Amino acid sequence: MGEETMKLKQVAALTGGTLQGNPDIEISGIRAIEDAGETDVTFLTKKKYLDRLGKSKAAAVIVDKEIETDKAQIITPNPQLAFARLLTEFYPKTRPEAKVDPRAAIGQNVTFGDNVTVSPLVCIGDNVSIGDDCVFHPGVVIGEGCRIGDHTTLFANVTLYHNITLGKHVTLHAGVVIGGDGFGYTVDEKGQHYKIPQLGDVVIEDHVEVGANSCIDRGAMGTTLIKTGTKVDNLAQIAHNVTIGEHSIIVAQVGIAGSCTLGHHVVLGGQVGVTDHVNIGDQAMLAAKTGAFRDIESNGVYGGVPSLPMTAWRKAVTIFAKLPEIKKKIKEFEARLNAIEKKDSAS
Amino acid sequence: MGEETMKLKQVAALTGGTLQGNPDIEISGIRAIEDAGETDVTFLTKKKYLDRLGKSKAAAVIVDKEIETDKAQIITPNPQLAFARLLTEFYPKTRPEAKVDPRAAIGQNVTFGDNVTVSPLVCIGDNVSIGDDCVFHPGVVIGEGCRIGDHTTLFANVTLYHNITLGKHVTLHAGVVIGGDGFGYTVDEKGQHYKIPQLGDVVIEDHVEVGANSCIDRGAMGTTLIKTGTKVDNLAQIAHNVTIGEHSIIVAQVGIAGSCTLGHHVVLGGQVGVTDHVNIGDQAMLAAKTGAFRDIESNGVYGGVPSLPMTAWRKAVTIFAKLPEIKKKIKEFEARLNAIEKKDSAS
Amino acid sequence: MGEETMKLKQVAALTGGTLQGNPDIEISGIRAIEDAGETDVTFLTKKKYLDRLGKSKAAAVIVDKEIETDKAQIITPNPQLAFARLLTEFYPKTRPEAKVDPRAAIGQNVTFGDNVTVSPLVCIGDNVSIGDDCVFHPGVVIGEGCRIGDHTTLFANVTLYHNITLGKHVTLHAGVVIGGDGFGYTVDEKGQHYKIPQLGDVVIEDHVEVGANSCIDRGAMGTTLIKTGTKVDNLAQIAHNVTIGEHSIIVAQVGIAGSCTLGHHVVLGGQVGVTDHVNIGDQAMLAAKTGAFRDIESNGVYGGVPSLPMTAWRKAVTIFAKLPEIKKKIKEFEARLNAIEKKDSAS
Repeated sequence: MGEETMKLKQVAALTGGTLQGNPDIEISGIRAIEDAGETDVTFLTKKKYLDRLGKSKAAAVIVDKEIETDKAQIITPNPQLAFARLLTEFYPKTRPEAKVDPRAAIGQNVTFGDNVTVSPLVCIGDNVSIGDDCVFHPGVVIGEGCRIGDHTTLFANVTLYHNITLGKHVTLHAGVVIGGDGFGYTVDEKGQHYKIPQLGDVVIEDHVEVGANSCIDRGAMGTTLIKTGTKVDNLAQIAHNVTIGEHSIIVAQVGIAGSCTLGHHVVLGGQVGVTDHVNIGDQAMLAAKTGAFRDIESNGVYGGVPSLPMTAWRKAVTIFAKLPEIKKKIKEFEARLNAIEKKDSAS
Repeated sequence: MGEETMKLKQVAALTGGTLQGNPDIEISGIRAIEDAGETDVTFLTKKKYLDRLGKSKAAAVIVDKEIETDKAQIITPNPQLAFARLLTEFYPKTRPEAKVDPRAAIGQNVTFGDNVTVSPLVCIGDNVSIGDDCVFHPGVVIGEGCRIGDHTTLFANVTLYHNITLGKHVTLHAGVVIGGDGFGYTVDEKGQHYKIPQLGDVVIEDHVEVGANSCIDRGAMGTTLIKTGTKVDNLAQIAHNVTIGEHSIIVAQVGIAGSCTLGHHVVLGGQVGVTDHVNIGDQAMLAAKTGAFRDIESNGVYGGVPSLPMTAWRKAVTIFAKLPEIKKKIKEFEARLNAIEKKDSAS
Repeated sequence: MGEETMKLKQVAALTGGTLQGNPDIEISGIRAIEDAGETDVTFLTKKKYLDRLGKSKAAAVIVDKEIETDKAQIITPNPQLAFARLLTEFYPKTRPEAKVDPRAAIGQNVTFGDNVTVSPLVCIGDNVSIGDDCVFHPGVVIGEGCRIGDHTTLFANVTLYHNITLGKHVTLHAGVVIGGDGFGYTVDEKGQHYKIPQLGDVVIEDHVEVGANSCIDRGAMGTTLIKTGTKVDNLAQIAHNVTIGEHSIIVAQVGIAGSCTLGHHVVLGGQVGVTDHVNIGDQAMLAAKTGAFRDIESNGVYGGVPSLPMTAWRKAVTIFAKLPEIKKKIKEFEARLNAIEKKDSAS
């Protein structure tokens, strides 16, 4: 990792936190509690890890409230955020040299911003425009007419079909496919599937990150739209004409069918499925493996297939596990009712 | 989109429908109700959208029965099909120039049909035969001994292992992998997994389309077979020795385990899983997220994990949500029975 | 398939089994019961296929106990294992010529073992070390600083990010992505997702095989670790800082969230999901589509969402299907209780 050092007061200043302890300690790294050495800063998110801190060699600890410790401490409302920021500072991403490798295949009328890296074995179609500071890893294929904003990174073997628009600071991980045809067919007179031409496009706004081998299809006639700041994990499927609002989180292997609309700050857990034309309100959360077959209200937390409000789902699955007892009770009650009724009719 | 125009009577003729209205209106495009301009044709599938049509600028509308409107109308039994056909006509797919790019790596004894496009950075193994009018996008890798029919398109970064057979008019979207080893192991004396050599192949018949990053494994000893006209969405997994019948629909993220057989016109919804050696009859439908662990009858509609007939599943999940009420009732009945029995025994 | 022949006694010797029958029969192939010809050996795993054997042309059969047959027989405790070993022997994998193709892009300070194949259009970063007998298919991208053990095969379009370690006899199928960033964010003061730098790595030990288009993310700070002999199917997702023990089986489309630990000989069925920080004990098995949201004990067999012990889950789902009957009973009991209570109070 990094080789430079920094005084603790500088570290504290970077977090915006308050420093208690020797401001002149030299800090060389940022590490987890167990791994931290004598010149490292660490962080504490949960009180229950306090004993681990005692055993840690860390020179200083980031905390949300003052604690009893013989280490220096940096007090800041969100230690995890401070920690992430310090990691970014201490271990800056390296990037390959800015140049267009001659082994890349570049189309006609391609415009490049400043400081762009085009690796060997990249293929860029005609009429593509590329912003400043972009990095394209080997095997990237960019279709005709794409527009790519500044500071955007495409990892190896990413495919953009034609006419895709990527904003600034977009990151697409290896194997991502943007703009494949939506899955749209209609049945003809012979019972065969006739393809509905997929004539739309995909727009991915700023600061979106998409995980490895995920797929985002182009709109049938309009646009598939991923708004600013949304993060998509690996192997997710986003179908044609979906809109995902700002700052949403789409965990791995989620599938979102055609024409769904998600609000902002939505969270979909791993392997969630959403059927077509479903609307999911702002800040809604769906637990892992949920099947959302109907609209989901804003701020709701849901689980299950089909989805139920989380507390209702939790209660129901708890009883589900006890269904054999319920069945037994039913049988028992039947016998007891029969006995009572027999006695009653005899009396 | 398209730049040419056509008279409305020509448009009607292309659909095979009956025209009511001015046959000589010039039509320049085909668009959704909301987007259509004054020289566009649109279509109406549901009566409830009739008021939207009133507000639409469209010059003409495709309908299945005559409606009251001041617009011209084309009457045809399947407006969506007519619409799709007109889209195909008005916005024909462009294809890259037919040539073998010198930056592609071509093996020995490769035969090319007429009018083939091999993009830069394509790699074709030895003894491959390629039909007429094929298009291979950049990054495509074709293994030794593959046979590829006419009019077949492989999008960027598709991988065909060795000895794969593709029919005519096949479309494989970006990142598709055909012919990887099936997942077959047996346990040896030390409790370690010994690989069963996967010696079979894959045959994909005519007019099959496979979505981005989907995988179809080669047979262990025989063939994994996808029959004519079947459409597979993105990120689907089709294991070794599966057979899928004609004109089936496999939605995104479906997984079909080894040696399953699907009939014709089967529909598997998103994220469906089918365990190994299961047979699914003709025209069966499985709802999204179904787990099919046993054979499914022809024409059946199923849902749930494990799968139940759709109506039974719907009833059961409705009651599932009310399990807390049932539990409460059980407790109440217990108390009431106790009270009655106590009274009875006292009397 | 193979062209050479072998005497039956040699075949028997390869399996370590006991031969009954003519030791000098010439054997040319190893085939399934239905496909075997007069010079082929086949195998019988289940007694119920005995009648199929009667109709088979096979010259000899591998069995676990002596059977009545007019064919020669090889008796060995594990016929499937013997069969797999014979397949490996009779149909050895061919490999492309050992050479570094000049159309590959090779970085600085790359070290090659003996007998390595680097196909056209492979890209290898700086400071990569490669063992003996490795094969890299076209489109493979290997990031800076990777270490790759002997006898390791990377199929087409595999991506290794930087600093990935692969053991010996590792096989990664087409489109696999190793070392993409883990999905780690924290929320900043504006409610936006701030990326936690993913500074760790991935270590894949010997004899691991990973199926097409699967993804294994790099650790946030430590290592994502796949231990010796584990096999992963297609389209699986393994998140940051996961550890999978030796000789485990991860079937297609499984998703394992961050920081999970799996023991040795674990089996996860297709489409299983495991939420973050869950521990799964040695030799545990999860049925297809299970959702493991809590720790799983060693040797346990589980199913359902959330997971239940298999027998409990089976009982519960059987009753789940009968919930409408239970509901009816509840209603009936209510009426009967009302009637009894009314009568009682009247008496």
